[in-house]
Amino acid sequence: MKKLNVGMIGGGFMGKAHSMAYAAMPMFFWPAPAIPHRKTVVDINEQMAKDAAARYGFESYSSDWRRVVEDPGIDIIDIVTPNDSHAEIAIAAAKAGKHIICEKPLARTAAEAKLMYDAVKDAGVKHMVAFNYRRTPAILLAKKYIEEGAIGKILNFRGTYLQDWSADPQSPLSWRFRKDIAGSGALGDIATHVIDMARYLVGEINEVMGVAKTWIKERPVQSGGVDKLGTVKAGGDVKKEAVDVDDEVSTLLRFESGAVGSIEATRNAWGRNNYITFEIHGETGSISFNYERSDELKVCFASDPDDRRGFRTVYTGPAHPYGAALWPIPALGIGYGETKIIEAFDFISAIVNDTEVSPNFHDGYRIAEISDAILLSASNGKWERTGA
Amino acid sequence: MKKLNVGMIGGGFMGKAHSMAYAAMPMFFWPAPAIPHRKTVVDINEQMAKDAAARYGFESYSSDWRRVVEDPGIDIIDIVTPNDSHAEIAIAAAKAGKHIICEKPLARTAAEAKLMYDAVKDAGVKHMVAFNYRRTPAILLAKKYIEEGAIGKILNFRGTYLQDWSADPQSPLSWRFRKDIAGSGALGDIATHVIDMARYLVGEINEVMGVAKTWIKERPVQSGGVDKLGTVKAGGDVKKEAVDVDDEVSTLLRFESGAVGSIEATRNAWGRNNYITFEIHGETGSISFNYERSDELKVCFASDPDDRRGFRTVYTGPAHPYGAALWPIPALGIGYGETKIIEAFDFISAIVNDTEVSPNFHDGYRIAEISDAILLSASNGKWERTGA
Amino acid sequence: MKKLNVGMIGGGFMGKAHSMAYAAMPMFFWPAPAIPHRKTVVDINEQMAKDAAARYGFESYSSDWRRVVEDPGIDIIDIVTPNDSHAEIAIAAAKAGKHIICEKPLARTAAEAKLMYDAVKDAGVKHMVAFNYRRTPAILLAKKYIEEGAIGKILNFRGTYLQDWSADPQSPLSWRFRKDIAGSGALGDIATHVIDMARYLVGEINEVMGVAKTWIKERPVQSGGVDKLGTVKAGGDVKKEAVDVDDEVSTLLRFESGAVGSIEATRNAWGRNNYITFEIHGETGSISFNYERSDELKVCFASDPDDRRGFRTVYTGPAHPYGAALWPIPALGIGYGETKIIEAFDFISAIVNDTEVSPNFHDGYRIAEISDAILLSASNGKWERTGA
Amino acid sequence: MKKLNVGMIGGGFMGKAHSMAYAAMPMFFWPAPAIPHRKTVVDINEQMAKDAAARYGFESYSSDWRRVVEDPGIDIIDIVTPNDSHAEIAIAAAKAGKHIICEKPLARTAAEAKLMYDAVKDAGVKHMVAFNYRRTPAILLAKKYIEEGAIGKILNFRGTYLQDWSADPQSPLSWRFRKDIAGSGALGDIATHVIDMARYLVGEINEVMGVAKTWIKERPVQSGGVDKLGTVKAGGDVKKEAVDVDDEVSTLLRFESGAVGSIEATRNAWGRNNYITFEIHGETGSISFNYERSDELKVCFASDPDDRRGFRTVYTGPAHPYGAALWPIPALGIGYGETKIIEAFDFISAIVNDTEVSPNFHDGYRIAEISDAILLSASNGKWERTGA
Repeated sequence: MKKLNVGMIGGGFMGKAHSMAYAAMPMFFWPAPAIPHRKTVVDINEQMAKDAAARYGFESYSSDWRRVVEDPGIDIIDIVTPNDSHAEIAIAAAKAGKHIICEKPLARTAAEAKLMYDAVKDAGVKHMVAFNYRRTPAILLAKKYIEEGAIGKILNFRGTYLQDWSADPQSPLSWRFRKDIAGSGALGDIATHVIDMARYLVGEINEVMGVAKTWIKERPVQSGGVDKLGTVKAGGDVKKEAVDVDDEVSTLLRFESGAVGSIEATRNAWGRNNYITFEIHGETGSISFNYERSDELKVCFASDPDDRRGFRTVYTGPAHPYGAALWPIPALGIGYGETKIIEAFDFISAIVNDTEVSPNFHDGYRIAEISDAILLSASNGKWERTGA
Repeated sequence: MKKLNVGMIGGGFMGKAHSMAYAAMPMFFWPAPAIPHRKTVVDINEQMAKDAAARYGFESYSSDWRRVVEDPGIDIIDIVTPNDSHAEIAIAAAKAGKHIICEKPLARTAAEAKLMYDAVKDAGVKHMVAFNYRRTPAILLAKKYIEEGAIGKILNFRGTYLQDWSADPQSPLSWRFRKDIAGSGALGDIATHVIDMARYLVGEINEVMGVAKTWIKERPVQSGGVDKLGTVKAGGDVKKEAVDVDDEVSTLLRFESGAVGSIEATRNAWGRNNYITFEIHGETGSISFNYERSDELKVCFASDPDDRRGFRTVYTGPAHPYGAALWPIPALGIGYGETKIIEAFDFISAIVNDTEVSPNFHDGYRIAEISDAILLSASNGKWERTGA
Repeated sequence: MKKLNVGMIGGGFMGKAHSMAYAAMPMFFWPAPAIPHRKTVVDINEQMAKDAAARYGFESYSSDWRRVVEDPGIDIIDIVTPNDSHAEIAIAAAKAGKHIICEKPLARTAAEAKLMYDAVKDAGVKHMVAFNYRRTPAILLAKKYIEEGAIGKILNFRGTYLQDWSADPQSPLSWRFRKDIAGSGALGDIATHVIDMARYLVGEINEVMGVAKTWIKERPVQSGGVDKLGTVKAGGDVKKEAVDVDDEVSTLLRFESGAVGSIEATRNAWGRNNYITFEIHGETGSISFNYERSDELKVCFASDPDDRRGFRTVYTGPAHPYGAALWPIPALGIGYGETKIIEAFDFISAIVNDTEVSPNFHDGYRIAEISDAILLSASNGKWERTGA
Repeated sequence: MKKLNVGMIGGGFMGKAHSMAYAAMPMFFWPAPAIPHRKTVVDINEQMAKDAAARYGFESYSSDWRRVVEDPGIDIIDIVTPNDSHAEIAIAAAKAGKHIICEKPLARTAAEAKLMYDAVKDAGVKHMVAFNYRRTPAILLAKKYIEEGAIGKILNFRGTYLQDWSADPQSPLSWRFRKDIAGSGALGDIATHVIDMARYLVGEINEVMGVAKTWIKERPVQSGGVDKLGTVKAGGDVKKEAVDVDDEVSTLLRFESGAVGSIEATRNAWGRNNYITFEIHGETGSISFNYERSDELKVCFASDPDDRRGFRTVYTGPAHPYGAALWPIPALGIGYGETKIIEAFDFISAIVNDTEVSPNFHDGYRIAEISDAILLSASNGKWERTGA
């Protein structure tokens, strides 16, 4: 069986998720299109790189991502670093002819994303952006229903991504709150997942109207290199620095198809943890999803008789997309890991079969254009075209 | 015990709801501030007026609303007619010195609403608009939490009102789809309930951005005088006429307080029946409500310890606002009727105690201004001020 | 239109509910089979009787129930007193030729219930037991599905009735905790509602196995004549007396049809308010209900395709049993009141049309036999036959 | 870092789950107590064994489990075969001094389980039964609440395990429906998970009352060696054979502590997929869990004020047991895999630290005794002691 060597750049929680996906993918999808071999993991701190290799099952480690990117023994570069390094690494990897999977958002700005997209296009390598949530089986099922015409022409898409891990002003200043590293805040980090779902399910977004807020204007500075994601609260005497990105965005959307919609993303929603939701109204049915109950998709068909019409709560399983590869019965429990395993499968398959995979760098670039348009609209109060 | 004589103009489903409220109010709120006596009911068709009197327990009936409005034996005029007659009746009733409760929306336009508000103000009578949903005990509880500061400064309000009774294009052309009678569509008929809640809970709305759609552009003409509300589907050969009002609106909002928000209302949401929802994010907590489960309010307090924080599902009962007057334990079942019973109590109380009640005609006028601004924004694509 | 004069014996919260139903029934069901006229209300305390007449809209009042029972101007006797007086009043009323509706449980024991059933049978009057919850439209819809064969042969019924209004040991000693008045505790007061539903939906229950507990063994004595239903907590120095009835029962059931089942009822379920639930598994489908969300019925059909099978959440409305008489769209909000309005309609209809109504005194008697068998089983640890 | 070599006997879906857990455990729990090395996998069919090794990442494979059990290079024997081979393999492994993790139920009968327990006790090896569901973080959190006294003395435990993958009579005759292989049906396969939870959370079960049914009395014979778990429906002409185990059990329970309870398990619950639920009522609070929404635990505290008491929906995350090792925020998505990863961590930790782990073979034996008592009670209609 073919083996593809992976060089993974970065080793935080995303490194964990990707490593598990590489290890588990062939166990689920068998025969696998190829075995992703955990070859080399990179961290700028050599000791941490060594530790990551042991922990995540990589054969070797390095503190120099450029050497790994250029290593002829590497087939795939997996970028799981903060946003500000995506472009440099990806462009180098493309030039070196590597297939690339990059964490989301693709880049800090559309301009940066465009360079990355051009690089992979020129290089003819496979490229993917790790908007993993759309690979939740329930969302794949939503896509299937839509493609089958089960809810008819889509009229409206309403999405949210609500979190509270940083709703406390004492939660530390993660790099996710710094514009120079992250590009934007709730918009780039979480709203983009829902923008990805909207494009996947409803189609291209042409125009946007946005409101952006930074409710918590400063946060305690973190010590140490590891990003705390809000789980460690600082005491009162810790030095604070400004947050220069949004922590909430609200938008209205116009799709190419004529559908309209809205997306709201916030980090200030106490009680909402990873509340990625959408509701889609079509001419002959509706679909509703909430990632906090990720095994479920709710769907209503207008064609049901009046006395027995209502949202059906479908638990995904073997009868649904990718389900036969996952667990033998519905509701056994789809978690974050499974979305990453499916992502890895689709990416490896695209490499082996020389096909396109989605969302790729073009999608990532389009999402960056939409994000830029939202921020522009938020600053000037006007509807903005997204470039599509 | 004091008795207040009610003249009710109109006798559709709303007449039923109001009549039940008058009959039941003293049973729930005892001793009652006064007994609302069902004196005269009006329908332009005399036979239907007679029938309504028997059905709804009125002492007499009439086909001439002007006579009833001027009848010195009448204390209260209750307007439950379609929107286009609200202004004429209300202004006449105000001139005759009657206290007035009027179904929502107050009028077809802000201009019309302004005349009504001026009339009641000049006459010095009590006035109320029947946005009854805000009197759901769970919403009264939300108000209490907010006033107690339990969720802190409010950052965001997101509301929806989704229905499907007319999602089928064969559902008949109710007067609710005709601009000359209704003024607007989903906006005036349902979104205004959520605008009322937003103002009640978060405060005045200063600026709005709107998108309005008319997805179903024509509907079968109804025969007969009774409005079918979509329950009777027309056959294929029935004559159709144009719908000239919106059946979906999406908005972004800016509140006076600095909070932001959104409201979406649609009649094309298959599977949503009376899906009036809101979620409010505050600095120290969140509140979530869904009228389809109207006995419940969900609230999350930031101050709860990390290991036991989450939305609490509170079932309203005697420990909550107005609860002691309703049923002896929570979840016995609050329905539409109870919201109308509380509304009747508050209106009668205001008359007896000579106090203001809310929402009154000023609120109704403000909501009309906001609605007009939404439609203007939807047509010109710009943020519009609401006049506040 | 025919008028039937009601004499109501007792005037607590149940008096409120019944009075509202009499007032509202013709408003909902029109033309009404007859108008139930609130003629005389009885309380042993004359002042309270007078007060009840004013509050509940009765024409007259009395402190002597025997006079009212024998009053030739009375057509219907409505018994809303505590359980220990049901038999005496009902038997007298039957002898006087009155139609009778009696609050549940019918009596304290099967023996007592038998006397009542015999009396109404001998007198040839109409009789009904006010197990109102089964008239929740969602349960009527469950019955319709079952009768249509939509879930096939029934295999299992699992029901609960969980409350917490008296889970606090300081909640007062209502008459509901005294065997001489109530007969039994959670069993008679709440479990019987679920037994009624089980018989209505699945059929006769032949054998039972029971466990009964009295977790809270004494409670503070109440002062004053009004029953507090746990809403007023006593202080620490109040005299306590023994609870001599169960506050929790668990059962296993065998139905005549071959189906099996279980019912659990408790007053010690913190967080459950009026949690009347059942789930029914049939050969080709399932039904699930929770009264705390009483507008909804959940139903799953085996015949749905594998990729779109799941519980449908159906909100009851005009397309469902009795729905056309209630509110114009689903989820407008069915509350406790509506169950009583339907109950009143069915009772009045049975009188006018000379038909049987269910649950009647025979059902009440059968439920008492089942209850007695449960208590016997709980004491001897053996399966007991119910007499069926 | 220490390495422990695993020999895994069997390679169906459980082999997949265990293999993923071994690969992922150190990624999550780092530094890991030891690295579980996938050394040898066994299948009686050599080709399938070879395939399993490639798929699940084992270094070698074998068709002879005895050789692997006796291989001095193996530290751990992991038994993921059907129930009828558990005892023979486990006893041999114990004699060879291997630590053993065995899939549930431990054995077909208590007698068989006793032999296994005696064998591991005599050998002094570590032993564990893979009742993985209790390691769902939400259940670990329930345990924490109970141990902290947050809900007080427990009064009642009500559990269910409802499935529908074999509710269709055309679903094939898995070995799970054959007594000689499985021992019992829904009881051993699924009810035992809930019995395990009940013992874990509430304590030992002393007496049981049971009802057992076999609603579907015959099923189509499967061809081929792979167990289909109901996902492949047979056509009408396929040979059928008898099901000789229960497909539904209902029980009443008496705990050593004085608490009472019930468990219902069925394979005939259309619409329920992996509906493992429990509700626990304590003197000062309640806990409710549903595995179909496995990220959530619901808890109600009596000590909350009257006006804000209700079930809290807590999403498990870093603030909860084991959460810091899993994902950085709550509701990122706990799936079946995570329960197995925690299980592997606890088992490996017990080996390295020479501590006991639970549920072990003694627990497995006790659960088998309880299961036997339930079947006995179901056949004789009497309460049966469980041996405790």
